[in-house]
Amino acid sequence: MPAAPLRLGLAGLGTVGIGVVKIVQREAALIAARAGRPVVVTAVSARDPKKNRDADLSGYAWETDPVALATRPDVDVFVEVMGGHDGPAKAATEAAIAAGKDVVTANKALLAHHGQALALAAEAAGRTIRFEAAVAGGIPVIKALTEGLAGNRIKRVMGVMNGTCNYILTRMQSAGLPYETVFEEARQLGYLEADPNLDVGGIDAGHKLSLLSAIAFGTRVSFDAVELEGIGAVSIDDIRLAEQMGYRIKLLGVAQMTGRGLEQRMTPCLVPAASPLGQLQGGTNMVVLEGDSVGQIVLRGPGAGQGPTASAVMADVIDLARGCRVPAFGLPAAALAEPVPARSATPAPYYLRMRLLDKPGALAKIATCMGDAGISIDQMRQINQPGEADDDAIVLIVTHKASPADIAHAMAQFDRTGVLVGRPVAIRIEEI
Amino acid sequence: MPAAPLRLGLAGLGTVGIGVVKIVQREAALIAARAGRPVVVTAVSARDPKKNRDADLSGYAWETDPVALATRPDVDVFVEVMGGHDGPAKAATEAAIAAGKDVVTANKALLAHHGQALALAAEAAGRTIRFEAAVAGGIPVIKALTEGLAGNRIKRVMGVMNGTCNYILTRMQSAGLPYETVFEEARQLGYLEADPNLDVGGIDAGHKLSLLSAIAFGTRVSFDAVELEGIGAVSIDDIRLAEQMGYRIKLLGVAQMTGRGLEQRMTPCLVPAASPLGQLQGGTNMVVLEGDSVGQIVLRGPGAGQGPTASAVMADVIDLARGCRVPAFGLPAAALAEPVPARSATPAPYYLRMRLLDKPGALAKIATCMGDAGISIDQMRQINQPGEADDDAIVLIVTHKASPADIAHAMAQFDRTGVLVGRPVAIRIEEI
Repeated sequence: MPAAPLRLGLAGLGTVGIGVVKIVQREAALIAARAGRPVVVTAVSARDPKKNRDADLSGYAWETDPVALATRPDVDVFVEVMGGHDGPAKAATEAAIAAGKDVVTANKALLAHHGQALALAAEAAGRTIRFEAAVAGGIPVIKALTEGLAGNRIKRVMGVMNGTCNYILTRMQSAGLPYETVFEEARQLGYLEADPNLDVGGIDAGHKLSLLSAIAFGTRVSFDAVELEGIGAVSIDDIRLAEQMGYRIKLLGVAQMTGRGLEQRMTPCLVPAASPLGQLQGGTNMVVLEGDSVGQIVLRGPGAGQGPTASAVMADVIDLARGCRVPAFGLPAAALAEPVPARSATPAPYYLRMRLLDKPGALAKIATCMGDAGISIDQMRQINQPGEADDDAIVLIVTHKASPADIAHAMAQFDRTGVLVGRPVAIRIEEI
Repeated sequence: MPAAPLRLGLAGLGTVGIGVVKIVQREAALIAARAGRPVVVTAVSARDPKKNRDADLSGYAWETDPVALATRPDVDVFVEVMGGHDGPAKAATEAAIAAGKDVVTANKALLAHHGQALALAAEAAGRTIRFEAAVAGGIPVIKALTEGLAGNRIKRVMGVMNGTCNYILTRMQSAGLPYETVFEEARQLGYLEADPNLDVGGIDAGHKLSLLSAIAFGTRVSFDAVELEGIGAVSIDDIRLAEQMGYRIKLLGVAQMTGRGLEQRMTPCLVPAASPLGQLQGGTNMVVLEGDSVGQIVLRGPGAGQGPTASAVMADVIDLARGCRVPAFGLPAAALAEPVPARSATPAPYYLRMRLLDKPGALAKIATCMGDAGISIDQMRQINQPGEADDDAIVLIVTHKASPADIAHAMAQFDRTGVLVGRPVAIRIEEI
């Protein structure tokens, strides 16, 4: 007797939803063979049933209300690819769980805000929520972390997980264009979310980091504790000067458990130009996982788009069809610890850029401030740029490891020297 | 009531076996939480029970015969980290399956030669064989391919999967040393297998490729059909000259399904120096997976060593503890197709190096041979090296796409021109 099909209820018929439909239809035989049973869509929901879509949906039942879809008796798995961290996506996911369905979602915002409650509810119902598509698109990073590295104590997770930001930063560098110009290009290319701050403010990437962090450290999702800084203040000058020092600027997520608590940051950082993260161009994503036994694993791939995101959704669906039901965050939700956020980041080298009056003793005053703050200097370079005012000089400093507080202290002292022109810039250098 | 522990019988107490013991002991609580049940070692086997080993084995039952271990009633999963593709490893794995145990193995040679028979036997017994540790060490690539990309039709799999070969090639390049010197260094550093041909002959990496290929294309493991060429003939000259043309030489595995059948190669290839494969230094491994929906995924990490390999073994063990039992090659073994090997590789650009008599018309004769063979030239460079005989010149050619047969034909024609000094070299350029 052939095994019963796994029946999907698909909420959301945008790019990703249609991508899922295409794979289910095109690869029905392959998926049935791999999963050990057919995988079918039985019902779909979307706001506008009449909209013309790039797939044959005639065989599916239609619901306009995703909650109705989520609770249909002919649905085994509720696939949520609508988006939005409240409203219908949340209501429908809760309804699906209450009705005893497994959930597969691409919705990072929903999980970043409500992941703990949803995971608890799913487990109480003997079900799970899987979300491979929510982080780094097609890269199977949730699986790598939750399953592939399950024998490891995770030490650090890093990632470039917003393709739009990486596109903007690498385009600034390659074309020598300022942020505002490239931002506008990205908007016209359709790379930006309706609210661009989700991308360039680091919020979308911060959502993703908070999910990886929960799995890595066995803690409840705590997006509110992520230190967020977008890329809007990254200047073409710093991109260019960092390159001269052997670094590139990335919007880099870093999560690590330290003696002072859980550190989660999504901020512009310098990384070595020759490192895999430094080499990452355009919209591609990269996640670095560090475990005590395995060492460093680097995963690279497309972070968005119809095919990659639908591929990730299907991985979760096929897992469920195969009978693999792993807890959302790798541990039963009730066993996840309440994280203690680290109040400041671990010490790191910093890149400092400042403009000084070109007069005797200026550099010495800066060096003195550094020494007084207990910061030692690894490299220092003075650059007199052609076309700049004659009496100014740009000074670049790469420090040895220093705490953010020490850097802030030194920066405050710089202000008092009277040799500074404008505001100095400090960017963390993440050691890889 | 706490869930029953998953009981491991561990055959082999070398580096990897002891690594598994260390993780099981050190992370007992973490693993129990993640797996939903404790994971314990109940019994071990090794040839010499008296040998001093870097772990406390006093709590475990001892067997000197791995077959006896494999069939113990207090063993749920037989973990085989002995190695060897015949003899005790095979006998014990067969015995374990016959006794209804799941098997976790790091043994690529065993699976490359007997994977189909073992997978069939396991599935007949309602069990599975998992082998994350057999391919690319700590990189969770079997999981990524079998599960993470299960919604994809795989187009191509590539990989640098023998760390020793990559160490030798990158050391030759960075130090400017010939193969023989670096080979000897590697031997003294203990990087080489007892039979070095397993490494430098490409056999070990070929085993790994044949396993990935079976999963990727749903075909029976066919190691005998892998085109194998080791790195022994790679010269420092070609490494240096390829670099000048923007390429690096890697022992690269490539598997793809073409209209002419399944192509599996493990041969020295040129790859773009700036690509992730080109950037790979030292003993690190890299696997590139290409799917129709997901596009290109790149995985990078340590390919060997106690921690990474034990990490991979534990991933399989924790999957089994969680109740996830995926077929060895992603499909039921009986559904795997008998592959038709492609008789020759798909067309690709080639790098050609030859030494010509420095006399008028020499280059024209070579160009004519190329044209007659239907091969067009992308780049051609003549290099007169200082210190070389005055009447010789080195000519480098990068061709547009050509079939291996056309290249062989052109090379044969070169011989007849009378302008060639010594033998020309042709190396495939893999497009990435």
